[in-house]
Amino acid sequence: MAELVHIVGIPGSLRAESFNRKLLRAAQELLPPDTTLELAELAGIPPFNEDEETKPPAPVRELRAKVRAADAVLFAVPEYNYGVAGVLKNAIDWGSRPRTENCWNGKPVACVSASVGMLGGARAVYQLRQSFVFLNMRPINLPEVFVSFAPQKFDAAGRFTDDAGRKILASLLLELSQWTRLLRSAPPSSG
Amino acid sequence: MAELVHIVGIPGSLRAESFNRKLLRAAQELLPPDTTLELAELAGIPPFNEDEETKPPAPVRELRAKVRAADAVLFAVPEYNYGVAGVLKNAIDWGSRPRTENCWNGKPVACVSASVGMLGGARAVYQLRQSFVFLNMRPINLPEVFVSFAPQKFDAAGRFTDDAGRKILASLLLELSQWTRLLRSAPPSSG
Amino acid sequence: MAELVHIVGIPGSLRAESFNRKLLRAAQELLPPDTTLELAELAGIPPFNEDEETKPPAPVRELRAKVRAADAVLFAVPEYNYGVAGVLKNAIDWGSRPRTENCWNGKPVACVSASVGMLGGARAVYQLRQSFVFLNMRPINLPEVFVSFAPQKFDAAGRFTDDAGRKILASLLLELSQWTRLLRSAPPSSG
Amino acid sequence: MAELVHIVGIPGSLRAESFNRKLLRAAQELLPPDTTLELAELAGIPPFNEDEETKPPAPVRELRAKVRAADAVLFAVPEYNYGVAGVLKNAIDWGSRPRTENCWNGKPVACVSASVGMLGGARAVYQLRQSFVFLNMRPINLPEVFVSFAPQKFDAAGRFTDDAGRKILASLLLELSQWTRLLRSAPPSSG
Repeated sequence: MAELVHIVGIPGSLRAESFNRKLLRAAQELLPPDTTLELAELAGIPPFNEDEETKPPAPVRELRAKVRAADAVLFAVPEYNYGVAGVLKNAIDWGSRPRTENCWNGKPVACVSASVGMLGGARAVYQLRQSFVFLNMRPINLPEVFVSFAPQKFDAAGRFTDDAGRKILASLLLELSQWTRLLRSAPPSSG
Repeated sequence: MAELVHIVGIPGSLRAESFNRKLLRAAQELLPPDTTLELAELAGIPPFNEDEETKPPAPVRELRAKVRAADAVLFAVPEYNYGVAGVLKNAIDWGSRPRTENCWNGKPVACVSASVGMLGGARAVYQLRQSFVFLNMRPINLPEVFVSFAPQKFDAAGRFTDDAGRKILASLLLELSQWTRLLRSAPPSSG
Repeated sequence: MAELVHIVGIPGSLRAESFNRKLLRAAQELLPPDTTLELAELAGIPPFNEDEETKPPAPVRELRAKVRAADAVLFAVPEYNYGVAGVLKNAIDWGSRPRTENCWNGKPVACVSASVGMLGGARAVYQLRQSFVFLNMRPINLPEVFVSFAPQKFDAAGRFTDDAGRKILASLLLELSQWTRLLRSAPPSSG
Repeated sequence: MAELVHIVGIPGSLRAESFNRKLLRAAQELLPPDTTLELAELAGIPPFNEDEETKPPAPVRELRAKVRAADAVLFAVPEYNYGVAGVLKNAIDWGSRPRTENCWNGKPVACVSASVGMLGGARAVYQLRQSFVFLNMRPINLPEVFVSFAPQKFDAAGRFTDDAGRKILASLLLELSQWTRLLRSAPPSSG
């Protein structure tokens, strides 16, 4: 039996009916064997202030603990104004500081994104990938999950109903799981 | 006499000793004729929640009012983790919603950035430029002000002391002022 | 009667059946009044070598002359490998050198893009927008024309048949035309 | 003794006195043990035309063969107009087509860049990283080598003389070598 891979899934929106959170719930139904996915919410995380970086508030400490305990990270990335939702980027900033306490360091990572528009949040995801360089996270390459025209792809109960999309999402989860197992043997680089 | 150009300057950091705020204070000393620069702070702006977008809290309403009253916007952009500081992006997101109330619509804009590293915040500024497309802001092109190795370029009193940098900053302000006058004659496009 | 706006349209692909070229042909059918659109091809432009920048070959000189004579530029941008097609970027590089001879300087500009995939070339267009900053080009913001799943949207004769897409393309052309008229009154900045 | 790591270094410029090529020559002096670095030039590679992708010219076939034979790739990336030099992107495009023949697939990769300006080519490198996603290349994260103000950092004989820069370059080569060894155990994903 393979060693378990524990993924923490982070919905980058505070909205109750967020499509991105629902996408993570779909992911929980599509996991490969020996893989778990627990959600960590951003509610209660205040705007980051570097003057307080050494005494983060409780919701930040809890997020950091969940990330540290996980083997890999799965971000559900809302695109606001052609960029990463400020709310999500703010939480990532908190988790990264001080530099020596960067909770993201060395973590395998993948992104999914849903949006009402045609690009499915792609613009935000590519920006976030740039942050992974400095955070020293290890993103998978392909496949990518960009859910466009999201209102048409979730039913009244909030279930992600797009068959093609579910299939790609399952592939992404498998890739993340395998990538995590591969990298597990190696220490994080000194980033 | 030329009509006045009123610029609102937004420091994208909550840190008391933020280099980006100090850079805006330097800008206040370097304005071209018939141009004003007032600072608008982000303190008190909570994480954006789309469920509350139609009833923004007071600090958001105040920021929006200042932006609407201004002829142009000058962002001082902190770079965190190779991207736009979440705190700043979050405030921009608040100002843009609901879409029909986008306070940034049609505004001429420029960015400056200071950082401790070699690139002076450039990575964050290019990401923000992508957001300007959807926000329908009108950025100047050149010059750019990226203050690298910031701790060496501000004195103990917080004054921006880099002569070459001050000169470029003055040029940027002149360009923003002229660009604003040029666009003033035109209605914002329907973006 | 309004003064004419002459647009040069540049298909960024050498492929005979390029969807991007066909998209420019559709644009020629959808022009607003008092606006022309002439195509300039990239065939024959060799790889750029800075050692030869002061003696560009004939196809480069011809492209430069067409751009200089135009009031605005419309790029049809192929996306290869999540970036700008090297062929197109290479031609832009030729046109920009030496710096004092930058033929793109001050030109109003818009981009359209067609691709076989879901994002319609968006990734390439956002990269090109970054180049516009240094080239000192003046891009419109919205609307954007990203033609996804291109093979379904052109008929056997090469005509762009997507009604919604044609409508947005017409809006983009109108915006570019109006933006060009607005900026015409102003000298290019010293970029 | 560790198994050898063979790196192919690709200078993205045709210029005889290219700083980027000189940077790769410096890299050849700074290799970690059991690592080799051979240069592959782009001279003779014509503009990419998808109509000819199944019959690439000889210089393309040679480049592809060198890349396939290598364990890892090191790009020296010229920044032209705030983006990747068209010449380099064009060669990458050739190497990637047809999709089933993508010679870059699965290769560990790092970038270095030198430029006359302050940012040392960073803007180009971040764009290229976006292409690595689709190419399914495996970039290292840190350190990064951006040589700013390049004319001051190479002597008359073309030697890279910046001590701090040489040290970081050596670290980058060590990281690329270790990253390559780590990934060697794993098959390329199906990207």
